[in-house]
Amino acid sequence: MWSNEKDRALRERAAEVIPGGMYGHQSTALLPEDYPQFFTRAEGTRITDADGNEYIDFMCGYGPNLLGYGHPDIARVVAEQQARIDTSTGPSPLIVDLAEALTGMISHADWAMFCKNGADATMMGLMMARAYRGKRKVLLAKNAYHGSMPWNTPRPGGVVAEDRAHFIYFDYNDPQALTDAVKQAGDDLAGIFAAPFRHDTFADQGLPDAEYARTARRLADENDALLIVDDVRAGFRMARDCSWETVGVRPDLSCWGKVLGNGQPISAIVGSNRAREAAQSIFVTGSYWFSAVPMAAAIETLRLIRETDYLEHITMIGDQFRKGLVEQAADFGFALKHTGPSTIPMVLFEEDPDFKLGYGFCRAAMKRGVYMSPYHNMFMNAAMTRTDIADTLEATGAAFEDIKQSRASLKPLAALAALMEA
Amino acid sequence: MWSNEKDRALRERAAEVIPGGMYGHQSTALLPEDYPQFFTRAEGTRITDADGNEYIDFMCGYGPNLLGYGHPDIARVVAEQQARIDTSTGPSPLIVDLAEALTGMISHADWAMFCKNGADATMMGLMMARAYRGKRKVLLAKNAYHGSMPWNTPRPGGVVAEDRAHFIYFDYNDPQALTDAVKQAGDDLAGIFAAPFRHDTFADQGLPDAEYARTARRLADENDALLIVDDVRAGFRMARDCSWETVGVRPDLSCWGKVLGNGQPISAIVGSNRAREAAQSIFVTGSYWFSAVPMAAAIETLRLIRETDYLEHITMIGDQFRKGLVEQAADFGFALKHTGPSTIPMVLFEEDPDFKLGYGFCRAAMKRGVYMSPYHNMFMNAAMTRTDIADTLEATGAAFEDIKQSRASLKPLAALAALMEA
Repeated sequence: MWSNEKDRALRERAAEVIPGGMYGHQSTALLPEDYPQFFTRAEGTRITDADGNEYIDFMCGYGPNLLGYGHPDIARVVAEQQARIDTSTGPSPLIVDLAEALTGMISHADWAMFCKNGADATMMGLMMARAYRGKRKVLLAKNAYHGSMPWNTPRPGGVVAEDRAHFIYFDYNDPQALTDAVKQAGDDLAGIFAAPFRHDTFADQGLPDAEYARTARRLADENDALLIVDDVRAGFRMARDCSWETVGVRPDLSCWGKVLGNGQPISAIVGSNRAREAAQSIFVTGSYWFSAVPMAAAIETLRLIRETDYLEHITMIGDQFRKGLVEQAADFGFALKHTGPSTIPMVLFEEDPDFKLGYGFCRAAMKRGVYMSPYHNMFMNAAMTRTDIADTLEATGAAFEDIKQSRASLKPLAALAALMEA
Repeated sequence: MWSNEKDRALRERAAEVIPGGMYGHQSTALLPEDYPQFFTRAEGTRITDADGNEYIDFMCGYGPNLLGYGHPDIARVVAEQQARIDTSTGPSPLIVDLAEALTGMISHADWAMFCKNGADATMMGLMMARAYRGKRKVLLAKNAYHGSMPWNTPRPGGVVAEDRAHFIYFDYNDPQALTDAVKQAGDDLAGIFAAPFRHDTFADQGLPDAEYARTARRLADENDALLIVDDVRAGFRMARDCSWETVGVRPDLSCWGKVLGNGQPISAIVGSNRAREAAQSIFVTGSYWFSAVPMAAAIETLRLIRETDYLEHITMIGDQFRKGLVEQAADFGFALKHTGPSTIPMVLFEEDPDFKLGYGFCRAAMKRGVYMSPYHNMFMNAAMTRTDIADTLEATGAAFEDIKQSRASLKPLAALAALMEA
């Protein structure tokens, strides 16, 4: 029997010593009521909350879990490396091995630099674009998330106008909008953050259009500016290479994170020789950027990416998940919108402007052991099996039945309604 | 017999796949010739380079190693936690335990938030100060390092003028300079980054003056602005509390990192209730900020900080190191300047404007198994013994003899000379 007594007690303690009780993308503030805030175990494709409830996890840590939580091969190299050296006075030779592995796999990459947050990698991309020719303007797709630095965080708190100086925004996948934005930059265009695909929260996703991607490449070349693909979220779930290989376009820089160490803290920016001097000219560093354990994990993760059928498997499993949900929804009189790559699915209800159907559905599925997000894209991982999908569909079938019965009484989440009005 | 054949071979490979061969604070670009770039083992107070040369390490990973590399108690909790849950879809209950532990130890702190880089914590401090009353101006001590974000990185590459808008610089430890800077901010003062002590590279360190600290507190109060102590570097090496408890002044916010997990990647910002609403109003997050393993390491590190005499021990060992070096230097006709806390020593030669004595000395000591920095403050750790200091002094005695003999032929480092001219 599902209960959340311990989670509630932990929340009360957290409210005292953590502002707002929790912060950032793992706060439950915008999730359906009763969603657990705290977890005590993660194994394969399952997570267990503080009350002992187990869930099939479709969030994968908001991305990092690509191959399964606690993957035995990665756990082994982590334990072995931990006994040798981790954070120390210099990097280990693994930084060279990892840079060689990554540049060997990412077609546009001649070099790599490692850091901790995805936002470190995007900040380095921003700085390199500006260092490249001393120009300042940088183009960003509207609503694209590149991390929570003041130049891109989605909320205004703590941000001053100057943090957003020299950014020009355009509509994703619109070559004309991009062309207009480039014109607006005049002779001061430093770079274009192109976003591998459109993955805004609370909205349908959009795969990249090849013409848009080619336009971005051409405009960057014509203006001697750098083209940057922020692959932090999509990386290695669209290709065993930069995600824009799927549309045949190679950027000058791409940003990586999340899956890179299958959950071990490491991110990276990789680039072509064109951007090497710019990369060399900026001073960036971090206390743990040279730590060896996450690099050992990343080397093993990259090996598994190269040598296993993880990508075909998560595509197949993602397709099954989609197909199953759509069929079930129809059986119960609902219509779903499934957008984006099937390995990074976004599931929204048709005609659900205040998200109350999505929230009700996810809450009902959560109480039956399936953890999904009603507003954020989800992620597939290679530990997920056909049986997991069958178990998921059993839970979601009951969840559809549940919201069909309770439809008239479903209410939108107050916190979400407030955010939408703001 | 010391050799660096493998290090050289690794550097050649690194030059291909890492811009400049290495980047950031762990690059050997500004260290004496032949300093090893790559390390393969770290245990207690010793590190081993790629060629198998072992060193007594006075850099401690540029800070993180407080209790000894691979401390058995911390290694145990890391391994245990790794088997349960690390990076996942939500934080573990450890985030609450850790926030309670930290606020229980840091006198001014009512709440805590966790992140990865020290620069994440200082960036959050900056954003919170601006969010607090919607004011913009922030005061920084000249040359103080608060991380490599565009608003504070010490080199100009990739930085635009707007990144430095609304910062006002003052001389550290100078109450009048601080008062003038506050006047310059007018009615737009958001916060004061006070720096716990002066630890600029290539310069003598300076302990905080109590009148300066009290002035900073008073001016922040009078202007309804936040006072921030960046304890990323000094934290828990000056006190078992915020470093400014040593001068009796409590900030509104303090930033922590490096030692917090004894090398596991975690940093934090803690604050008083006065700053809680501001902390709650900013949106900040990171892919691995909620990972459980570094939190388990931090909880165990804090326990050892509370329950052992590590602080008294590293003070005693640091004093021995200082005293021994000063006496040796005098015996060989050199004079040293030892500045800052003895747990975070800075050792510079008198009358050595181009640092060639310091570089020659450190290089000679390095080849005899002692790893020191000729330009950056060093760090003491609790695994260091009297025997280590005796071994160190044997090596440094020979190093002093060496530079006494070779004094006329010592040359300044070309890369350093170029930097000093720039």
